[in-house]
Amino acid sequence: MRANDAVLSLGVLASGSGTNLEAILGATRSGTIRARVAVVVCNVADAKALDRAREAGVPAVLVSHKAYGSREQFDAAVVEVLRAHGVECVVLAGFMRIVTSVLLSAFPLRVVNVHPSLLPAFPGVAAQAQALAYGARVSGCTVHFVDAGMDTGPIIAQEPVPVLASDDEPTLRARILAKEHELLPRVLGWIADGRVEVTPASDGGRARVVVSDAP
Amino acid sequence: MRANDAVLSLGVLASGSGTNLEAILGATRSGTIRARVAVVVCNVADAKALDRAREAGVPAVLVSHKAYGSREQFDAAVVEVLRAHGVECVVLAGFMRIVTSVLLSAFPLRVVNVHPSLLPAFPGVAAQAQALAYGARVSGCTVHFVDAGMDTGPIIAQEPVPVLASDDEPTLRARILAKEHELLPRVLGWIADGRVEVTPASDGGRARVVVSDAP
Repeated sequence: MRANDAVLSLGVLASGSGTNLEAILGATRSGTIRARVAVVVCNVADAKALDRAREAGVPAVLVSHKAYGSREQFDAAVVEVLRAHGVECVVLAGFMRIVTSVLLSAFPLRVVNVHPSLLPAFPGVAAQAQALAYGARVSGCTVHFVDAGMDTGPIIAQEPVPVLASDDEPTLRARILAKEHELLPRVLGWIADGRVEVTPASDGGRARVVVSDAP
Repeated sequence: MRANDAVLSLGVLASGSGTNLEAILGATRSGTIRARVAVVVCNVADAKALDRAREAGVPAVLVSHKAYGSREQFDAAVVEVLRAHGVECVVLAGFMRIVTSVLLSAFPLRVVNVHPSLLPAFPGVAAQAQALAYGARVSGCTVHFVDAGMDTGPIIAQEPVPVLASDDEPTLRARILAKEHELLPRVLGWIADGRVEVTPASDGGRARVVVSDAP
């Protein structure tokens, strides 16, 4: 549980346009969630997320993955930035790098990812295209804690969206993304309020997330 | 496309309590769908589905799988019963037997199954327990044409249901089943109206189902 008056310091990692970052910034600004974005880290210089952070008056740091010899060295540099800004919870918001144990052990069960499918369906890249190729009629998005696997970490929340006969990859992507923009800030609000607890895996099972009721 | 005034003859295969059969019977009786249940086949003598069929005045046939030396021989006996009753479309409604090519080739892309998850998540047995063990927050049901794989056939329709923190296997099963009772008759109505077409698989892809708009 977190102290009742604390504001959760988020570090947002992004590689792209940063629309999920924008949704998080909106929720922190409006006071919908008791959190603030302490720093935004991008691995590519032209990520629009960097501009969005600067416009919002949030420290925006470029850590180019090309400057590091290994994923672990890159992650160590990212961890250093996150720690320097007092980050308590890391959000992967369209971050197109596989994170290593260097990041995960620095923020155990405090790295949150949003994935554009209802896991365990359609893990990995191009989840929307996978759903269309499969002929799924329902897809959605998943917010989960990151573990060492690919999209295998304990699930915090999921929301469904319909897949329409007229959909192509961009239309399905947009529908799922709109749902991500609602779900991700909502989950971060739960974490900020100390309502999210993880029960460790037992006898071969999965770690489970328990979200307690709002006080 | 089917003739505009035809009534689709259904053969329903069931092993258990037959609540999906009841939902189908209700939809045929009320005229919601242009179909009739021509025969109900069960593989176990004490299946409540047999009683429901008799009460509805529908031929109820027991074909005990114990009386046959192989799955193929059992399926051949079932096909004989279905053909004798003029069945055009076969519905697996809680039918706890794996069907073989004997049944599938007799009714190509006219064997419909309902599965209690959003496929491809949680295929096979105990889908509700699988969803709970995984920590899924959304599950649902899938109506699909049966092919030679295990829950791999082309999807006709899916509906999501929430998985609640308070759920156990019976409560989740009941919530999904209630959705099955809506979705399965609706899909059979589409088939009866000639609105469901299957596009064969091409270059390694999956066969796809196209549901045309209501006239």
